[in-house]
Amino acid sequence: MTTKQTVSAHVFAIGPQEVKETTGLTPAEIKALVGTVPVVWVDFDGPIDEETLAEFGKIFELHRLSLEDVKNARQRPKVEHFPKYHFIVTRMVSLHEKIDSEQLSIFFGKNFVLTFQEKAGGDCLDPLRDSLRAMGPEALCTVTADYLAYAIVDMVVDGFFPVLKTLGDRLNDLEEEIFRRHDQHHAARIHAIKRDIWALRQTIWPVRDALATLQRENITLVQNETRLYLRDCYDHALRIIEMVESHQTMCSDLMELQMSRENSRMNEILRVLTIISTLFIPPTFVAGIYGMNFHGDKSPLNMPELDWSYGYPFALIIMALMMGGLITWMWWKGWLTGIPSGRRFKKPFRKEIQDRDLEGRENRK
Amino acid sequence: MTTKQTVSAHVFAIGPQEVKETTGLTPAEIKALVGTVPVVWVDFDGPIDEETLAEFGKIFELHRLSLEDVKNARQRPKVEHFPKYHFIVTRMVSLHEKIDSEQLSIFFGKNFVLTFQEKAGGDCLDPLRDSLRAMGPEALCTVTADYLAYAIVDMVVDGFFPVLKTLGDRLNDLEEEIFRRHDQHHAARIHAIKRDIWALRQTIWPVRDALATLQRENITLVQNETRLYLRDCYDHALRIIEMVESHQTMCSDLMELQMSRENSRMNEILRVLTIISTLFIPPTFVAGIYGMNFHGDKSPLNMPELDWSYGYPFALIIMALMMGGLITWMWWKGWLTGIPSGRRFKKPFRKEIQDRDLEGRENRK
Amino acid sequence: MTTKQTVSAHVFAIGPQEVKETTGLTPAEIKALVGTVPVVWVDFDGPIDEETLAEFGKIFELHRLSLEDVKNARQRPKVEHFPKYHFIVTRMVSLHEKIDSEQLSIFFGKNFVLTFQEKAGGDCLDPLRDSLRAMGPEALCTVTADYLAYAIVDMVVDGFFPVLKTLGDRLNDLEEEIFRRHDQHHAARIHAIKRDIWALRQTIWPVRDALATLQRENITLVQNETRLYLRDCYDHALRIIEMVESHQTMCSDLMELQMSRENSRMNEILRVLTIISTLFIPPTFVAGIYGMNFHGDKSPLNMPELDWSYGYPFALIIMALMMGGLITWMWWKGWLTGIPSGRRFKKPFRKEIQDRDLEGRENRK
Amino acid sequence: MTTKQTVSAHVFAIGPQEVKETTGLTPAEIKALVGTVPVVWVDFDGPIDEETLAEFGKIFELHRLSLEDVKNARQRPKVEHFPKYHFIVTRMVSLHEKIDSEQLSIFFGKNFVLTFQEKAGGDCLDPLRDSLRAMGPEALCTVTADYLAYAIVDMVVDGFFPVLKTLGDRLNDLEEEIFRRHDQHHAARIHAIKRDIWALRQTIWPVRDALATLQRENITLVQNETRLYLRDCYDHALRIIEMVESHQTMCSDLMELQMSRENSRMNEILRVLTIISTLFIPPTFVAGIYGMNFHGDKSPLNMPELDWSYGYPFALIIMALMMGGLITWMWWKGWLTGIPSGRRFKKPFRKEIQDRDLEGRENRK
Amino acid sequence: MTTKQTVSAHVFAIGPQEVKETTGLTPAEIKALVGTVPVVWVDFDGPIDEETLAEFGKIFELHRLSLEDVKNARQRPKVEHFPKYHFIVTRMVSLHEKIDSEQLSIFFGKNFVLTFQEKAGGDCLDPLRDSLRAMGPEALCTVTADYLAYAIVDMVVDGFFPVLKTLGDRLNDLEEEIFRRHDQHHAARIHAIKRDIWALRQTIWPVRDALATLQRENITLVQNETRLYLRDCYDHALRIIEMVESHQTMCSDLMELQMSRENSRMNEILRVLTIISTLFIPPTFVAGIYGMNFHGDKSPLNMPELDWSYGYPFALIIMALMMGGLITWMWWKGWLTGIPSGRRFKKPFRKEIQDRDLEGRENRK
Repeated sequence: MTTKQTVSAHVFAIGPQEVKETTGLTPAEIKALVGTVPVVWVDFDGPIDEETLAEFGKIFELHRLSLEDVKNARQRPKVEHFPKYHFIVTRMVSLHEKIDSEQLSIFFGKNFVLTFQEKAGGDCLDPLRDSLRAMGPEALCTVTADYLAYAIVDMVVDGFFPVLKTLGDRLNDLEEEIFRRHDQHHAARIHAIKRDIWALRQTIWPVRDALATLQRENITLVQNETRLYLRDCYDHALRIIEMVESHQTMCSDLMELQMSRENSRMNEILRVLTIISTLFIPPTFVAGIYGMNFHGDKSPLNMPELDWSYGYPFALIIMALMMGGLITWMWWKGWLTGIPSGRRFKKPFRKEIQDRDLEGRENRK
Repeated sequence: MTTKQTVSAHVFAIGPQEVKETTGLTPAEIKALVGTVPVVWVDFDGPIDEETLAEFGKIFELHRLSLEDVKNARQRPKVEHFPKYHFIVTRMVSLHEKIDSEQLSIFFGKNFVLTFQEKAGGDCLDPLRDSLRAMGPEALCTVTADYLAYAIVDMVVDGFFPVLKTLGDRLNDLEEEIFRRHDQHHAARIHAIKRDIWALRQTIWPVRDALATLQRENITLVQNETRLYLRDCYDHALRIIEMVESHQTMCSDLMELQMSRENSRMNEILRVLTIISTLFIPPTFVAGIYGMNFHGDKSPLNMPELDWSYGYPFALIIMALMMGGLITWMWWKGWLTGIPSGRRFKKPFRKEIQDRDLEGRENRK
Repeated sequence: MTTKQTVSAHVFAIGPQEVKETTGLTPAEIKALVGTVPVVWVDFDGPIDEETLAEFGKIFELHRLSLEDVKNARQRPKVEHFPKYHFIVTRMVSLHEKIDSEQLSIFFGKNFVLTFQEKAGGDCLDPLRDSLRAMGPEALCTVTADYLAYAIVDMVVDGFFPVLKTLGDRLNDLEEEIFRRHDQHHAARIHAIKRDIWALRQTIWPVRDALATLQRENITLVQNETRLYLRDCYDHALRIIEMVESHQTMCSDLMELQMSRENSRMNEILRVLTIISTLFIPPTFVAGIYGMNFHGDKSPLNMPELDWSYGYPFALIIMALMMGGLITWMWWKGWLTGIPSGRRFKKPFRKEIQDRDLEGRENRK
Repeated sequence: MTTKQTVSAHVFAIGPQEVKETTGLTPAEIKALVGTVPVVWVDFDGPIDEETLAEFGKIFELHRLSLEDVKNARQRPKVEHFPKYHFIVTRMVSLHEKIDSEQLSIFFGKNFVLTFQEKAGGDCLDPLRDSLRAMGPEALCTVTADYLAYAIVDMVVDGFFPVLKTLGDRLNDLEEEIFRRHDQHHAARIHAIKRDIWALRQTIWPVRDALATLQRENITLVQNETRLYLRDCYDHALRIIEMVESHQTMCSDLMELQMSRENSRMNEILRVLTIISTLFIPPTFVAGIYGMNFHGDKSPLNMPELDWSYGYPFALIIMALMMGGLITWMWWKGWLTGIPSGRRFKKPFRKEIQDRDLEGRENRK
Repeated sequence: MTTKQTVSAHVFAIGPQEVKETTGLTPAEIKALVGTVPVVWVDFDGPIDEETLAEFGKIFELHRLSLEDVKNARQRPKVEHFPKYHFIVTRMVSLHEKIDSEQLSIFFGKNFVLTFQEKAGGDCLDPLRDSLRAMGPEALCTVTADYLAYAIVDMVVDGFFPVLKTLGDRLNDLEEEIFRRHDQHHAARIHAIKRDIWALRQTIWPVRDALATLQRENITLVQNETRLYLRDCYDHALRIIEMVESHQTMCSDLMELQMSRENSRMNEILRVLTIISTLFIPPTFVAGIYGMNFHGDKSPLNMPELDWSYGYPFALIIMALMMGGLITWMWWKGWLTGIPSGRRFKKPFRKEIQDRDLEGRENRK
């Protein structure tokens, strides 16, 4: 017993001469339409209530498991073959604040295509709808159910490219930023992009597998010509995967670079701290000594320097010598210029390493 | 010779009209039941003593190796085929304080299903039992031994989802926590979740393999219709694996993030330490010098500054100049703002790197 | 020409009624024994001299390459098929101070099994020998050469479990230790366990391959019943590999955890150093200033504060203000509590990151 | 309807006797040429307008998808088979400031080869053109369409070697630099090279796949002799991949080395800071004490040391003892020499670790 | 037209009775020799000029591509099959200062073997030459061209073992060194060994592939008996790969260990610096205060402590309390012993982590 209620789907009746688009049909009317034209596309843009879905299931003889997959919208993208129809689950992605993805379920049989979406509103199929509406008789006669299903999947796959482009731009921005200034939030930003890319990767991988299945398997409903197109679509999926991997590598590289720059900075900061402390702590100690209040009048041993005529210059010279010695030593160690002086590392590194190996072995004996 | 002792199993005799549930049967009575109804499910909820197990082994002609696998409850999930029955070993997981897993051994033959559990108490099969009890004749006539076995495995596989959900929530909580505050115990928490996820992964992988075996191989006892359902169940296992991998990646990313934040913090702390030390150590040294007690009355060379009219302002100005110079230098190095000033890094980084490469090459010559 | 010298092997003549164990036979006597009973097991527990080995090679028609593999005891575990016999090389492991492994070479033909060991002393076959000795006629009639070979390999494979158990216990101990106290030797301990696990992994992998070969290939000497047992043994090998991988992951995780804890500790230590230094260095500078000896009697500009009535309280208040200000600032930065105060990070991190992205982009313009 | 406009391609008419090179032909004239000589190579060095491309598509019966791939120049390298021709997409690389790559689309049929390039100007095919022009009749008779296509692909593949060579030289330079001096920009340089290598890797992988397809599949248009040459070309692609992987490993190793050296340097700097601070801070404190101004005349408890005859030497000796003790302690800890003294680590490390394990276990009890 | 010039190759004419070794033959004479004895081995120990190579190519009907591979000595190891001969390219390694490798090209046909080397001097084939010279008629009759080719490849493969042994020894030395003392050059040494191992890996992998090809494919010129030997040789290649992987893992582990030890050391150094600074900075500040010169005679508020009878002991006690308090606090934090005191971490870590999780969640609310 079928309901009389009309459904919210757009119905495209694609004839050899023209495309007739209607809304507000009852399931029975849709059923009646199928077979009268080469292809009927029932396009649900949004969630569907269970009753209507069951109704469609009965009309188009869809398997219970397929219907459950439509309802339970967290499926892996996949292709399943049933005697009378093929069932494709795929996901459309979009990038607003973060990666959003929406399940798109496609059934296609001999002369019908049904599409169900998880959420209402903005999808990536509008260009396809527009081009259908604009098609002349010449183009229309090539449209079959399997070609239309391919066209839908192709739209979905191509919808990944702008998202990847945006993420790639963000990564390039971030790369410049990391070089331009130090900010402890760089890591958090890389982390956020990483999560988005990972979500993308999780989505595209099973899509690729599904496309490979569609293309390779001996499916009677898919014509050879369409198979050529699917091969093209599969190539796009491969390219997306390569871009995703490239972005993932870029993320890891940026994280590593960021860590390395943080490290270098810490090094630089510590170097300055050490140079300043090392230069001033010893002379300060000397100044501390001559700031002691031992009473020189009690004993000649008590700080006689304070009474020397040249006591003060003597102390200053000691301090200057200390500082000069330390600066020389630091220069020799390469702390001031980055290049250690003296005899070290004039040989190429491999030779150097070998000599040290030998030395080390002798020392151990 | 069979024992007369009754066993603790629930026995579901699933007829075409109704399900009869009995307990307290002897093995012989159970044996008698098999064949009178389409399916008999002998459901042991807890460990079984060896004697009873051997008894069942004899009655249902189970292979010695299978019985050993039931007893020795640390088996890998697997599917094994014997002429008269199939043997499935799988594991049920639950998350209390940490991941617990329990072996579930399933035998199914032409018209019987036997299940043995490692531990007594809470399992994930209750919904199945309830739905069996509630089934009408219509539904019952589709229940076969292979379908029941599938239903049990499906329950087990679906039991992974809530555990994964909980772990995912913990990870998201942790992510927020890591951004909100510094705590040296974040790493330990990530580590604990990591171990749980790893345990889950170790469990689900062989389950997936077992499902692939069940579905693909040419098994006479599994009907084509059931194979469709198994394909669905296999998809769920794949999805679980993807979620596990996603969680693992998240763990690594969080660890990396945590490390990076610790590093950044150390950097920040060192920066402040260095700024403060660098600003105050040199003027403190100057103050130390003029705190020395050289006797100016012994010689005009001994600290004449102390007698100058402008000695004190002079010292203060020297200190202020020192501090001002250092602050300017630090600002120029970008220690105060994060952005190094001056001409550096106005070019995009690639250009900058190249120039430095050339410079480096010339310096080496 | 055969030698008359007796060999050190135990010879088990496994008849359908009883097992006769003899030692001190000459090769010729052993040869004579073969064929009189279903299976003869020649069990060399220790290294064998070349001459005897060659002798056996001639008697049992073993290929030159196989004999070389027995002598040269650093072979990879493998299975090789020759027309008259199969040759299995495997390794037995034991854990004393570190992982020791010993090659076990097994030849089995129609009614004989030969085993050669690399080293004398303790092996893992004693339970098998004992069970052979204890077998009744009933059990004995199922023992064939291929079953015996399986039983030996099974013993070897099961010998990995206690070693893995010990390593697992050590890892768990170490985990607790890492949480309980800081010790720079934790890393060295993890490193030592890691090397042991790696050695184990290198050994078990080819054993698994060998078992897969034995089980899958179309080998006439292995009966179908034995193949079932080999499948079981193969499952054990898989489980060992999973445990090894689990231990390896645990090692890496512990290393990471240890690194992270070291880092956290360094952070904590630096935080304290910085807090103390930052609090006391500026007031110490102030104290240094008023410890200078400028002569106030020479000029009113020379340290007039020293003569103020409230000079000392004034200095103390300045110092207290400095310290108070710094403490407040550190509290605000979250150095005292771990949670930065003020308006920062009240938003969820993703929002925060986005705002900063925008801000960064504007700054750059 | 064909256009009369001439096209910018070079047309090589490769006859058995000579090569005739012409430019400025119309598509129709080119079409007429095909078939009159063994091979016609239409060589477009630069972008082609859509109209001309469509024209060629019609003349040579090229599939719409292939033409789209030529226009949309961001394809993955691939080989596609159509009944009348094969279609190869590949990429040529060059290294100026960074890796540039340009798509090269090759169509080859029974007696024609068409090549389209993405960008005008410098390609890597000049040596091939020159050798064609220089070929004598002897060599020319071996040139077939499939051989020419191979020769073009071979040029493209060999064009990777100089790029890899340059990157390898840069890496070796960088390795020496890292050992010669400290520079925080080393990491950025490694990062830049890493990105270039990654870009190369992304390009060569699908080229390899395409070559494998060309060589393996049962393609009627490729002769056996040419297949030998393709095998050679495939080997070159493998070698390029190995070099790329080797460079990638080198990059990671250098990054690790750089990190490790930064770390070591930080260690060294901190060691010096600590030694200096530790040596001077305690004596400075002592000097501070005896610099206090407590009035000894108010009470004998107020700093009696100041009045001792040996007060000053006493203070100096205390300071010297402090410094001496600290130096000894540091030497014992191995901070001065790198080798900790005393009883520690005379045993080999494994023994040491074990002893500490036991010790740790006892401590815990 | 063949040249009359003699070539520098050693020619081994391996007859069934004896081996005749000659040098200084012309190509024509060599050609004449082939076929008169079962096997002729033409052994070029060093580079060959192009003309002679072409000459040989003509005589033995070698393909142009094979000859090019001999000349261009940077080929990947590989096996190629031509109708009349097989062509093996492999590489011999040796370890002097660093890994050197040399290409060895082997042609073998029905009754000849040709070997060409890249460089003159030391190769690893001398044992083979010696054993050929020493062979009696008995052994000689088993030598066929394919067996000789195997023997050469086997020598080459076995030549990897001593190199691996040396690298393994260096790694073990380095492990002990890392535990014995701190040296910033450890990382450079590991890096150098890593590069050598990587070079080895790059060489052995394709050799393994080549051996697999030789052994598996249906090659008419390789006899079944030789195939057994090749299987053995293949096993050796696998073992080499395992050792290489083991060494690589060891390198990474050592690098990690070295990093971890550097980190620990830094921690230790910082701990000491912090303890010393923290202990002495606050009392030094107190000493600084009482070293100020405020004039107590101007106001009773100006440093009255200086006039107290117990002023000095009071100051000393304050300082002692400060130091005592800080020491207690540090002990409680576990900085002195490594084990934090107080109530913390008495629970096992998992419990501890959970409690903190709950606490954290409450705090956030």
